[in-house]
Amino acid sequence: MLRNNIAIDAMGGDKAPKSIISGLAISSIRNPSINYIIYGDANKIEPLIKNREQLKAVSKIVHVEDWIRGDEKASRSLRRSKTTSMGLAISAVAKGEADAIVSAGNSGALLAMSIFGLRKLPGISRPALAAVMPTISGEVVALDLGANIDCSSQNLIDFSLMGIIFAKNVLGKPNPRLAFLNVGEEDTKGSNMIHEAASVMENSHFSSFYKGYVEGDKIISGDYDVVVCDGFSGNVMLKTAEGTAKLCAAYLKQVFGSSILGKISYAIGRSSFLSIRKKMDPRKHNGAVLLGLNGIVVKSHGGTDSIGFAHAVDLATEMSVGNYNELIKNELDKIKTKSL
Amino acid sequence: MLRNNIAIDAMGGDKAPKSIISGLAISSIRNPSINYIIYGDANKIEPLIKNREQLKAVSKIVHVEDWIRGDEKASRSLRRSKTTSMGLAISAVAKGEADAIVSAGNSGALLAMSIFGLRKLPGISRPALAAVMPTISGEVVALDLGANIDCSSQNLIDFSLMGIIFAKNVLGKPNPRLAFLNVGEEDTKGSNMIHEAASVMENSHFSSFYKGYVEGDKIISGDYDVVVCDGFSGNVMLKTAEGTAKLCAAYLKQVFGSSILGKISYAIGRSSFLSIRKKMDPRKHNGAVLLGLNGIVVKSHGGTDSIGFAHAVDLATEMSVGNYNELIKNELDKIKTKSL
Repeated sequence: MLRNNIAIDAMGGDKAPKSIISGLAISSIRNPSINYIIYGDANKIEPLIKNREQLKAVSKIVHVEDWIRGDEKASRSLRRSKTTSMGLAISAVAKGEADAIVSAGNSGALLAMSIFGLRKLPGISRPALAAVMPTISGEVVALDLGANIDCSSQNLIDFSLMGIIFAKNVLGKPNPRLAFLNVGEEDTKGSNMIHEAASVMENSHFSSFYKGYVEGDKIISGDYDVVVCDGFSGNVMLKTAEGTAKLCAAYLKQVFGSSILGKISYAIGRSSFLSIRKKMDPRKHNGAVLLGLNGIVVKSHGGTDSIGFAHAVDLATEMSVGNYNELIKNELDKIKTKSL
Repeated sequence: MLRNNIAIDAMGGDKAPKSIISGLAISSIRNPSINYIIYGDANKIEPLIKNREQLKAVSKIVHVEDWIRGDEKASRSLRRSKTTSMGLAISAVAKGEADAIVSAGNSGALLAMSIFGLRKLPGISRPALAAVMPTISGEVVALDLGANIDCSSQNLIDFSLMGIIFAKNVLGKPNPRLAFLNVGEEDTKGSNMIHEAASVMENSHFSSFYKGYVEGDKIISGDYDVVVCDGFSGNVMLKTAEGTAKLCAAYLKQVFGSSILGKISYAIGRSSFLSIRKKMDPRKHNGAVLLGLNGIVVKSHGGTDSIGFAHAVDLATEMSVGNYNELIKNELDKIKTKSL
């Protein structure tokens, strides 16, 4: 079955290809029915896969000698879409040999090559990076997280539409509540661009999903299922949340390691501490999806390890097995035929 | 001494004037040499101050019946600068009767009235909201945090200059390390506006302070003393950090309350838990300073309690007693006479 093939760029990311193959092995155990087409240096990949019987059985390695470097300009990488692991993995999706690609490589290159290779869905002005973030009572999907630095109000509308469909089909929320990230909740706050987008949302046929503006501290409130923003502030939001979670973890370590009572408390509450670490583990939410293209593109954090990469592959698997991109396309067709 | 007078808008904020007066009482114990001029409804303020001997002795209440509402447009509030508690408190600074004003009221109004009433420092294109944020090893000053939604590269340069002087004189860092908030560390990341500002910084005589771009997750690294950004993303950054810290605290509570071992661990490690809560307490960092005006303006969080408000008054006190605004003015004069 075509839809069970996932293309993997084995050469992208700080610890590639080792973390990539280990992560793939983890995800493969969780999702045994998936086949992988692995693009990269076979001399490096084969020794890593040799003793992993299960992964070996479901993988095909396509030897590619070139790969996109982390600091390469997107314009340069575009010229090498037919010779690099990232480019060929994207091609596999474009040709229908796979319906998802996962890469931990250069974000700008992945974005440019994916748009070029997979083309935008009809009616979508710009694709957007979306990721699921934890809240106090569940999860929220946020987009755009960095694919578009400057955004127009039309971009925000398109992101909203894709976010609503994502929340419905991936997060399982039948009536997603959507808000625009802003510097205040009052109507007068923020730029004209946001005001314009808000006014369109309020008067559109999905006005029932639109709940107004949300500030950065309320994203975690659990009151929203979709948060929409331009790629610059979305990236700042996502990364600040990561950094602050790290700071909290560091505080925990400092404080409980600095006194005898703290150490005893830690020893007794070890399982609680571990469960908190698990809850706060950013690897669980690794994997951002590039929405709005003819194919599923999942970007893994470049610095993640095998556990993080496995989560990114899980996300691609879930979207691919669930045929989410077809759902998104169909719903887009339906929505776009109605007037905003 | 004039410089020991602080003007207080007693009517701004969700819990005003109660939290304002209680906060003032706390700060007054820590800083007994400061005098306060309190602007607001005397019928409400006097009963709150009556039994606080120390605060009473150093306070003068100026009865004002009108105050700026939280949801008022700045344009409307500007017209009432001579009849409202916020407006008159700012006037006191403009007239030299006080050298700092603290308000927990409407941010937009405070910004507009302060610019109008106190005027910008010569050579500063826009004032900026600055606040001190915790890092893994100390503190970092971040600006702008919401005073300017759209920023030019010249604005970022001015913010940098004010941030460097703040870090030197308020944080006591002789050689502050400054970075621009961006979506990546590579030169090509971000908007043209940021690239322009970066190029000016690199070729200016304070290039030694400029360390390049920083992403949202690295702000807490302790590698920077000043983080400069436009007001929109700065606001997103500050509030996301607040929200994530709240989320971590909620996780701690959930996890340790949900098992017997967790509860025992909590009981034994109580002092560690309290010290973590203290470290993460956002009230400790309450108080954003509006830099770039002829006078010190401190904005307290509208929703804070007396402890938070006391910290905002402490900040105004420190800046006022240390004569920081004069220092900033002098250094600005010096720096501005050299070419960028």
